[in-house]
Amino acid sequence: MQRLARQWQRAGKAVVFVPTMGFLHRGHASLMERARKLAGRKGRVVASVYVNPTQFGPNEDFARYPRDAKGDQRLCRAAGVDVFFAPGNAEMYPADFSTAVQEEKLAGGMEGAARPGHFRGVTTIVAKLFNAVLPTAAVFGAKDFQQAAVIRRMTRDLNFPVKIVVAPTVREADGLAMSSRNKYLSPAEREQATVLWRAVQRAQEAVARRPVAVAQLRRETARMVEAQPGARLDYVEFFDPETLQPVRTVKPGTRMALAVFVGKTRLIDNGGV
Amino acid sequence: MQRLARQWQRAGKAVVFVPTMGFLHRGHASLMERARKLAGRKGRVVASVYVNPTQFGPNEDFARYPRDAKGDQRLCRAAGVDVFFAPGNAEMYPADFSTAVQEEKLAGGMEGAARPGHFRGVTTIVAKLFNAVLPTAAVFGAKDFQQAAVIRRMTRDLNFPVKIVVAPTVREADGLAMSSRNKYLSPAEREQATVLWRAVQRAQEAVARRPVAVAQLRRETARMVEAQPGARLDYVEFFDPETLQPVRTVKPGTRMALAVFVGKTRLIDNGGV
Repeated sequence: MQRLARQWQRAGKAVVFVPTMGFLHRGHASLMERARKLAGRKGRVVASVYVNPTQFGPNEDFARYPRDAKGDQRLCRAAGVDVFFAPGNAEMYPADFSTAVQEEKLAGGMEGAARPGHFRGVTTIVAKLFNAVLPTAAVFGAKDFQQAAVIRRMTRDLNFPVKIVVAPTVREADGLAMSSRNKYLSPAEREQATVLWRAVQRAQEAVARRPVAVAQLRRETARMVEAQPGARLDYVEFFDPETLQPVRTVKPGTRMALAVFVGKTRLIDNGGV
Repeated sequence: MQRLARQWQRAGKAVVFVPTMGFLHRGHASLMERARKLAGRKGRVVASVYVNPTQFGPNEDFARYPRDAKGDQRLCRAAGVDVFFAPGNAEMYPADFSTAVQEEKLAGGMEGAARPGHFRGVTTIVAKLFNAVLPTAAVFGAKDFQQAAVIRRMTRDLNFPVKIVVAPTVREADGLAMSSRNKYLSPAEREQATVLWRAVQRAQEAVARRPVAVAQLRRETARMVEAQPGARLDYVEFFDPETLQPVRTVKPGTRMALAVFVGKTRLIDNGGV
């Protein structure tokens, strides 16, 4: 991969990169199409599929994370990807691997608090993939809003010569954000899972009328989630979209993010309110 | 710097990089000359001078670390450096900087134990400088033996496309390793400071005859250092040069490293025994 990337560098090509964990869906396809547009005809688009073990906690779903190499390749080809990069664990993490990249402010709350070590795994693998692919730009999905903020900060702080592009979340007809983990949901859970986006929409409606105290929106969100029999609210936060600092009063421009267990499946979503 | 580096990439030039903290001496010059040879006529040599605050501990000599911008530029020119890169603190560490690169095995002992946070600062700034300069190779001095091992590991682990070259320590006529910190020494201390290299040589002589237990070499080293009125042994270690794992019996091929306070000045040295 790196040898090829070096040749592209010499040729002065734009290289746009979409790192993924595979089991690709329309959300990923939209990132790749965006990458294709950014790269133009003369540029190159690389998509990686790597289920990165270091970003899963010890009690998380690494082993059973869904995989579909053939389907992934098909989707990449259809979306205009030039190179499908699927490195192996032995190559990415040799036995004496001992280095970590860590973002220490934006990565603390929300997913970072709920999943200790998660973002450390993310920033480490993204730094590695950036050096393997040597892209001029990389596209990430807005569904993982905090992840995108952490990666943007890491990229700036370490001076990676990579432009970070964040593309909008793609949703099912009923608003559920596309996610590889949706596959885990039973038909009943699948219906309940719409509560994440409905809660964001409810907050948007409330805030459109006048600024609202965070406490009130938290209560309403909790009530909506609890009304679903198999659902449990993990967190809901309201924060500045740049600094991720929590706000006390929610106004248009504030970002809302939440994590909900639907049965055993943990889903996340977010939106501007 | 990065814009220039990108142009060189496109032109397919070898770029050899020598990161330093300035107050340059003949030891640094030898690294630059090595870089010049590696780069060849068509390649480019970049030397950076940056006194990196994050690799100094709170009670260390950051503020009084010696600086000589004009002398540094003169030495770089004479050594065949093409670009003298001297970034500022505000550029390297903006107020909301929040990312760290950390090597977690090789960086634990010796300098890492004596100077908590030191290697974290080193690997973070080296990763940043690699991304700013985009070199094809980088040259480090063997005097900082553990540092070179930590950087080589970090470079491999994060897949930086940079070849790490380690160049031999340059010494004064009496064996003292060249170091910017030698400037701190009084004439009397300057004489005592030769004990570091004499201790390495003594160990080399002993081991040349037969393998020696570490405990015995430690005692002898401690005795030699204590014989200097103003000197105090900080540590002496004997280890495998690749893994930095301590050995119990010292044979040819083992590496020896030591740190000694001479007055208030902390000096390090190392050698193969």
